[in-house]
Amino acid sequence: MSLICVGSIAYDAIETPFGKRERVVGGSAVYVAYAAANFVKPVNLVSIIGNDFDREEIKALEAKGVSFEGVERVKDKKSFFWSGRYHLDMNTRDTLVTDLNVLADFNPVIPDSFQDSEFLMLGNLHPATQISVIRQMKIRPRMIAMDTMNYWISSAIEDLKLVLGMVDLLMVNDAEARELTGDYSLVKAARKIMIMGPKFLIIKKGEHGALLFHGNEVFFAPALPLEDVFDPTGAGDTFAGGFMGHLAHTKDISFENLKTAIIVGSAMASFCVEKFGPERLKEISKPEIDDRIRQFIDLVNFDISLV
Amino acid sequence: MSLICVGSIAYDAIETPFGKRERVVGGSAVYVAYAAANFVKPVNLVSIIGNDFDREEIKALEAKGVSFEGVERVKDKKSFFWSGRYHLDMNTRDTLVTDLNVLADFNPVIPDSFQDSEFLMLGNLHPATQISVIRQMKIRPRMIAMDTMNYWISSAIEDLKLVLGMVDLLMVNDAEARELTGDYSLVKAARKIMIMGPKFLIIKKGEHGALLFHGNEVFFAPALPLEDVFDPTGAGDTFAGGFMGHLAHTKDISFENLKTAIIVGSAMASFCVEKFGPERLKEISKPEIDDRIRQFIDLVNFDISLV
Repeated sequence: MSLICVGSIAYDAIETPFGKRERVVGGSAVYVAYAAANFVKPVNLVSIIGNDFDREEIKALEAKGVSFEGVERVKDKKSFFWSGRYHLDMNTRDTLVTDLNVLADFNPVIPDSFQDSEFLMLGNLHPATQISVIRQMKIRPRMIAMDTMNYWISSAIEDLKLVLGMVDLLMVNDAEARELTGDYSLVKAARKIMIMGPKFLIIKKGEHGALLFHGNEVFFAPALPLEDVFDPTGAGDTFAGGFMGHLAHTKDISFENLKTAIIVGSAMASFCVEKFGPERLKEISKPEIDDRIRQFIDLVNFDISLV
Repeated sequence: MSLICVGSIAYDAIETPFGKRERVVGGSAVYVAYAAANFVKPVNLVSIIGNDFDREEIKALEAKGVSFEGVERVKDKKSFFWSGRYHLDMNTRDTLVTDLNVLADFNPVIPDSFQDSEFLMLGNLHPATQISVIRQMKIRPRMIAMDTMNYWISSAIEDLKLVLGMVDLLMVNDAEARELTGDYSLVKAARKIMIMGPKFLIIKKGEHGALLFHGNEVFFAPALPLEDVFDPTGAGDTFAGGFMGHLAHTKDISFENLKTAIIVGSAMASFCVEKFGPERLKEISKPEIDDRIRQFIDLVNFDISLV
């Protein structure tokens, strides 16, 4: 009933209209782990770090129930580093620096002790790396979910198509769904993507919420309207962590429960953007999460009677 | 229990990626009336037309329960004409022609027979014109709702502030809410707008749905994900018509019922975009509307239990 989470661990430098941080822990695996650990333990991390990675950050994650057994530490290299600057609307950003460092040699190895995990989240990595992880699993997990990005759509489409045929669920943003299919209509794009393999598809629309597709069914969850978005970095990965954490906790992969998982993921993402990097996620409590989920219920709940 | 709807009646020339129409009936009042007439009769139209306006279009609206008693016909001038071309994403458009014609002299007069109307929808017009209508009402309607646009925000802000202090509800799109307040955050913008007067605020986000604000409460309704948006012209006015039509029909202006009205409005708007101009609205049936509302329930309904 545990969750494996494969992805990057990084240091980020982030600049938003509200301020800047020169060095904050980041990477998809960190956000997924912080969010998921509120719902399921252990969260089995598979990633790679350099000699510069702070021991205190590892301890903080381990204290939340995150296992570092699958995280390789490279002695003579630095951790993955990313730097970005957000525009005033907070919806667009410029990437200033991408130093792959250790990530350039990332060949994830799944420890034996992780083999009983029934839920697998493949963060945004080269599709060939994602395939290698799936092939290492001796028993196929009940739910394999993956993220990807426009870079792999344009540079590794054949590998991407291969891995899409191996997973249960794809999470992408609206621009990626459009680029992957050539369709502007997300309904049409969704149909094409599900033919490529995944029977579930989540299209993330940032501040405009998220859509879940499955066969002919569709579900929509809004993002919480917030006074301020302080730093959107990691919001999508935090969403994925809350989503997969809820599924791994409940062990229920019905469409109905995936809808609930989307609400949980949206609630977690709404915390993420309130402070820089994963700062807000580090301090979050169960009552706060429950309260936030109640706000989502109030936000969309209506009672209509058709005569 | 009837509804007064003040706004433009026009001929439009529309070009979308799916085709073009040289001359199709349009204007805010026409869309509001076609949508509202499914829920309340009569819909009391207050508008102005030229000598070129087709008698058959009037008959079609009258057959739906729309009264033309408040529509002035000018013998020696043409009807308002608007022409626009939509971009590929269907979210942005260029206005090619705006011939005000009769609309330049529009001084709406509320007929005595309309005086008992408890619901008043003020379409997008000069704020001074909106004020003149409100002042003509001998008994203040229970719900006065208004639309506006960026043009009046920049060219008639003093009159706009005056009318905002006289109405119960403002409907604007996200860009207009931001322009009116200078706040990018819609939550902050909403708070400022409600201080200006209206106790209810609807912020329309097009394909991204609509938000309803009232005091500290907020409700969100998505737009229905559609395979194709054929022509977005009039979708916002159709939303307003379904919304006000439901309120006038139920005579209930509680926050709970406004939520339902937003769903009804969203359902009506989802029909509007399926064909050119108001073509789809002309042919719509009650069972189709009920079925569409059921799709909205399925789209957002989830069942979550907090432990």
